[in-house]
Amino acid sequence: SSCSDDSSKLKIAIVGFGNFGQFLAKTFVQQGHTVLAYSRANYSDVAQKLGVSYFSNADDLCEQHPEVIVLCTSILSTEKIIKSLPFQRLKRSTLFVDVLSVKEFPRNMFLQHLPPHFDILCTHPMFGPESGKNGWNQLAFVFDKVRIGSEGSRVSRCNKFLDIFAREGCRMVEMSCAEHDWHAAGSQFITHTMGRVLEKLGLESTPINTKGYETLLNLVENTAGDSFDLYYGLFMYNVNAMEQLERLDLAFESLKDQLFGRLHGVLRRQL
Amino acid sequence: SSCSDDSSKLKIAIVGFGNFGQFLAKTFVQQGHTVLAYSRANYSDVAQKLGVSYFSNADDLCEQHPEVIVLCTSILSTEKIIKSLPFQRLKRSTLFVDVLSVKEFPRNMFLQHLPPHFDILCTHPMFGPESGKNGWNQLAFVFDKVRIGSEGSRVSRCNKFLDIFAREGCRMVEMSCAEHDWHAAGSQFITHTMGRVLEKLGLESTPINTKGYETLLNLVENTAGDSFDLYYGLFMYNVNAMEQLERLDLAFESLKDQLFGRLHGVLRRQL
Ligand SMILES: NC(=O)c1ccc[n+]([C@@H]2O[C@H](COP(=O)([O-])OP(=O)(O)OC[C@H]3O[C@@H](n4cnc5c(N)ncnc54)[C@H](OP(=O)(O)O)[C@@H]3O)[C@@H](O)[C@H]2O)c1
Ligand SMILES: NC(=O)c1ccc[n+]([C@@H]2O[C@H](COP(=O)([O-])OP(=O)(O)OC[C@H]3O[C@@H](n4cnc5c(N)ncnc54)[C@H](OP(=O)(O)O)[C@@H]3O)[C@@H](O)[C@H]2O)c1
Repeated sequence: SSCSDDSSKLKIAIVGFGNFGQFLAKTFVQQGHTVLAYSRANYSDVAQKLGVSYFSNADDLCEQHPEVIVLCTSILSTEKIIKSLPFQRLKRSTLFVDVLSVKEFPRNMFLQHLPPHFDILCTHPMFGPESGKNGWNQLAFVFDKVRIGSEGSRVSRCNKFLDIFAREGCRMVEMSCAEHDWHAAGSQFITHTMGRVLEKLGLESTPINTKGYETLLNLVENTAGDSFDLYYGLFMYNVNAMEQLERLDLAFESLKDQLFGRLHGVLRRQL
Repeated sequence: SSCSDDSSKLKIAIVGFGNFGQFLAKTFVQQGHTVLAYSRANYSDVAQKLGVSYFSNADDLCEQHPEVIVLCTSILSTEKIIKSLPFQRLKRSTLFVDVLSVKEFPRNMFLQHLPPHFDILCTHPMFGPESGKNGWNQLAFVFDKVRIGSEGSRVSRCNKFLDIFAREGCRMVEMSCAEHDWHAAGSQFITHTMGRVLEKLGLESTPINTKGYETLLNLVENTAGDSFDLYYGLFMYNVNAMEQLERLDLAFESLKDQLFGRLHGVLRRQL
């Protein structure tokens, strides 16, 4: 195939061709990689426009022998989808990548369910269609080489894949899946939670916005495009999320106590 | 005096020379106005460095016959301070301005306590030492000409004062005090509340910050410099603040219900 001719190009299959899968596909295609896609819904039209070959059948996709499979499904459906893929139709040397916003969970799923001859790279691009709409420069890309065979071809395939992000200017951060989840619960999960609380408030622009308020409006815009499934996945599949939600709850309660405690003090003095 | 010679320059007394009073003084001095200050604490050294004449006695300040008095005290101490000023030492034609972050409250205080021959201008610069550190261009300045006498000299004095902000590039927004408080509770008060909740969480920069998370870190920086008195003033003296706090509370509760409701659904199906 044309892929194996040009040494820097990969044949990449995207599994889960929703919001984020399509977003990644654009850049993969732009960089000249051959991109295939498979999803539950029928995305043939979208795929055609993007220059991606669409498969509505997983067996057909796997028979194409992609070198890399990128799992872009929702966190919640990951286990079901991994279990449903016909691994036996793939080449024994295949690189499995995921881009889930939690990392320990897919790492464990991959190690548990993938045949031992597959390579495993767990990644998290710390951006999406909204925050990455003007390019990926300086945006963080987290990766953990969970299991990459030592043969030259396997090492170089993994590096070629990572290079897609490096070329776009991403800040490449190698980090264990556990460490990722620890940092992400205290930052990304809190950010999404704040964005969703504010979205519920239905904030509107006023004639007298402060800079701080415009910051809040941006935050809502940044998180509102993501599915609730994604947010729920962050909550359910990051072991540290619950603790962070509790901390947020306590912080809000303690602020209210400060306000009302002082209020009571004022009233008491007036009695 | 030199002020009355140069027709565009004013003799301005700042009452309450804390964080925000000093911040305003810098620009007033830069534009060539004569600036006097009076506060509870002794700020003579700071004042000297800024080119401001400092008075530790309100009678002395008022005997200087400033054309404009700018009230920069905390919202909470405003009533006490207004009642303590020796109005009889001022010229009958004096312009009283306030910069409080709530507007109906000082408006009512002024109308209730100031002699009828004083002019009244209620304002709110929608920025502070942090958000305005790189200049005031495009930042909103809200004002309400509550009571400006019709004589040419009174009209022009008020305009000269407003011009200080217009010259710096502020977006000049004329708006009633009531309308201001309505907009500000839904925007500024919510922003400060979010900033304070996040401050309590002790957010730290991580190696994998998303853009959204950096937005939160900025927000904390933007509000952390303000005194709790200021925030408490927003809460106590804006009639709309309590309702906004309740809305925020409900939004957070409803998000938690969504998370836990789904969680219960998952568990129930597994039983
Ligand atoms: N959005 C972002 O900014 C972002 C950034 C970094 C990483 N990620 C990660 O990328 C992945 C995809 O995110 P997303 O933004 O596209 O939204 P999402 O709601 O997390 O996932 C949507 C994808 O999951 C598939 N899916 C959902 N439920 C399914 C089911 N029951 N069976 C089969 N497929 C199912 C959808 O397929 P169909 O459309 O065919 O139904 C679609 O491809 C997630 O793991 C997310 O954490 C997202
Ligand atoms: N900071 C901002 O970004 C900002 C922006 C727009 C408007 N404002 C408004 O500007 C005003 C001043 O704000 P700020 O940031 O400087 O902080 P603040 O904590 O709201 O007010 C501090 C000022 O109030 C005086 N004060 C406090 N309690 C007093 C008392 N019991 N007796 C006498 N004076 C007392 C302080 O005088 P001493 O220092 O002498 O004790 C100081 O001058 C507030 O009304 C605020 O709403 C602030």
